[in-house]
Amino acid sequence: MKDRVRAIAPATVANIGPGFDVLGLALDGPYDQVEAERTEDGLVTLVDITGDDGALPRSAQDNCVGAAAQAVLTTFGGPGAGVRLWLHKGLPPGSGLGSSAASSVAAAVATAAVICPEVAAPGLLDATREGERLATGSPHPDNVAPSLLGGLVACVVREQGRVEALSLPVAEGLVIVTASPEMQIPTEESRAVMPDRYGLEDVVANMSRVAGLVSGFASGDLDRIGSCLQDRLATPYRKELIPGFESVMQAAMEAGAVGGGISGAGPTLFAVTDARRKGAAVGAAMVEAFAAVGLPSVARVSPIDARGARLVGPDWTPGD
Amino acid sequence: MKDRVRAIAPATVANIGPGFDVLGLALDGPYDQVEAERTEDGLVTLVDITGDDGALPRSAQDNCVGAAAQAVLTTFGGPGAGVRLWLHKGLPPGSGLGSSAASSVAAAVATAAVICPEVAAPGLLDATREGERLATGSPHPDNVAPSLLGGLVACVVREQGRVEALSLPVAEGLVIVTASPEMQIPTEESRAVMPDRYGLEDVVANMSRVAGLVSGFASGDLDRIGSCLQDRLATPYRKELIPGFESVMQAAMEAGAVGGGISGAGPTLFAVTDARRKGAAVGAAMVEAFAAVGLPSVARVSPIDARGARLVGPDWTPGD
Repeated sequence: MKDRVRAIAPATVANIGPGFDVLGLALDGPYDQVEAERTEDGLVTLVDITGDDGALPRSAQDNCVGAAAQAVLTTFGGPGAGVRLWLHKGLPPGSGLGSSAASSVAAAVATAAVICPEVAAPGLLDATREGERLATGSPHPDNVAPSLLGGLVACVVREQGRVEALSLPVAEGLVIVTASPEMQIPTEESRAVMPDRYGLEDVVANMSRVAGLVSGFASGDLDRIGSCLQDRLATPYRKELIPGFESVMQAAMEAGAVGGGISGAGPTLFAVTDARRKGAAVGAAMVEAFAAVGLPSVARVSPIDARGARLVGPDWTPGD
Repeated sequence: MKDRVRAIAPATVANIGPGFDVLGLALDGPYDQVEAERTEDGLVTLVDITGDDGALPRSAQDNCVGAAAQAVLTTFGGPGAGVRLWLHKGLPPGSGLGSSAASSVAAAVATAAVICPEVAAPGLLDATREGERLATGSPHPDNVAPSLLGGLVACVVREQGRVEALSLPVAEGLVIVTASPEMQIPTEESRAVMPDRYGLEDVVANMSRVAGLVSGFASGDLDRIGSCLQDRLATPYRKELIPGFESVMQAAMEAGAVGGGISGAGPTLFAVTDARRKGAAVGAAMVEAFAAVGLPSVARVSPIDARGARLVGPDWTPGD
């Protein structure tokens, strides 16, 4: 057991297409990093945050990394076990790329490595959800689960509201392009625009596309993926909160994407394609379309991260 | 091109678990058979029906086999092309095993073989839906598609209400047990008991289980299949129409099934297990539980039919 470690956790796209609150995947793109050092003072201390604009809460009690680390200590730590944490943000907060989830996951993985290295990743899911609960008000695991486990994950609802994260197979070679415009959507607003109830026709349409999408990701059938990304539950309402949604998605398609949608609760939009070179063109087209409605944006071209959160050496940089 | 052929089409389980109107699969169990003979009179003639109790419509205009054959002729037949048809029922009508779908599919496949043998199975889907439309009032393909194509099929809703049948991978070795009690549920009644609208929580639960179920069928992970078969859209309401539902399902689980539900609109119940021997025990337990509420029933133990409808020789018998 090392005394000081560094963990990274990937950005994630949740609410993939028709899979509202169900399907999420990890991006081999930006990562959050957390360093953890074991102490014997029984405390969780957040020493420093770098890489953000200063807006994130600085105390361990108020930051999701503290909540995730505390949950690891409470569940797995012996008497007196504590950690000091350093968070380095690689993800833009509030953009729909699972920023708080990546911080929570990196914190749980780093803390576990110095406290309970025998606990494997799936055993840390509940701890990461405590971070998400603090940051977003909901412990729903559709971002933390893919960030922790990598790849494509389905959050399956069991009885009594329990949610289990199932890893689903993903073919190699798929590329996810994200375009993050410079704006924020308050979480309450993105929930408030959605209807309370849905007609059976919309429900069946979404269920059928989830079935097709899961099979398309497994086989790498791009046409099947593209045709199954359309959503009737959230996108028709939430797209009104994102200026340029239609034109950005259309630009992505014309540049070679097979489909896409809103990443998480937005405002980031994502598109699916199959080659890094095509991805760059898709990203440029999306940025140009956002610019046409007056929104600066940042595009990222990412393969799917199949590994999920992990420990890295002190010299790790994104792209390794 | 032969002048006279015989086609078989398998029974199907539609509405699998959470996949209402979405997921269906074909059973290597009872089959309907249709013989077709080419004529030059431009007509569809239903010569005879055997194997039923005499209740099915005897004229080609009123029977789904006539409608399916007519659709094949209209779409693919040259001037004067006609068929004479003989239907042999192997499936019990009105039991929830896709009886009319199997008849429609066998008729379309047999008719195509003497009229347009160059048309492959997927090209006949629309014709089979015309049979289903006549028999049930709806052309929804969740029974005809798996009967035609075999295996597990998702009926994916496209825009403008178009529905596409996607074949999904299924691991070998899965066994489906069905228990068909001696009763009928009028289609109108089974639709009428379902709510018009659903809350997001139920929708998300079902979508998430569809994702898990598709992945479970592909990998053959029985635990995943079993845990993802629970349904919140139709089963909670339709089970009230089937005496003994709870006790039959519980008996199936205690005898070794991992899960199950209502086949189609019922009253047949199905259960999933993984070995023929276990299947026999599951079937016996289900029959016993139905008997305990006063309902005689017939159990069938079937692997999944991966081939779908096909031409067979004149001496074919079920089990070949």
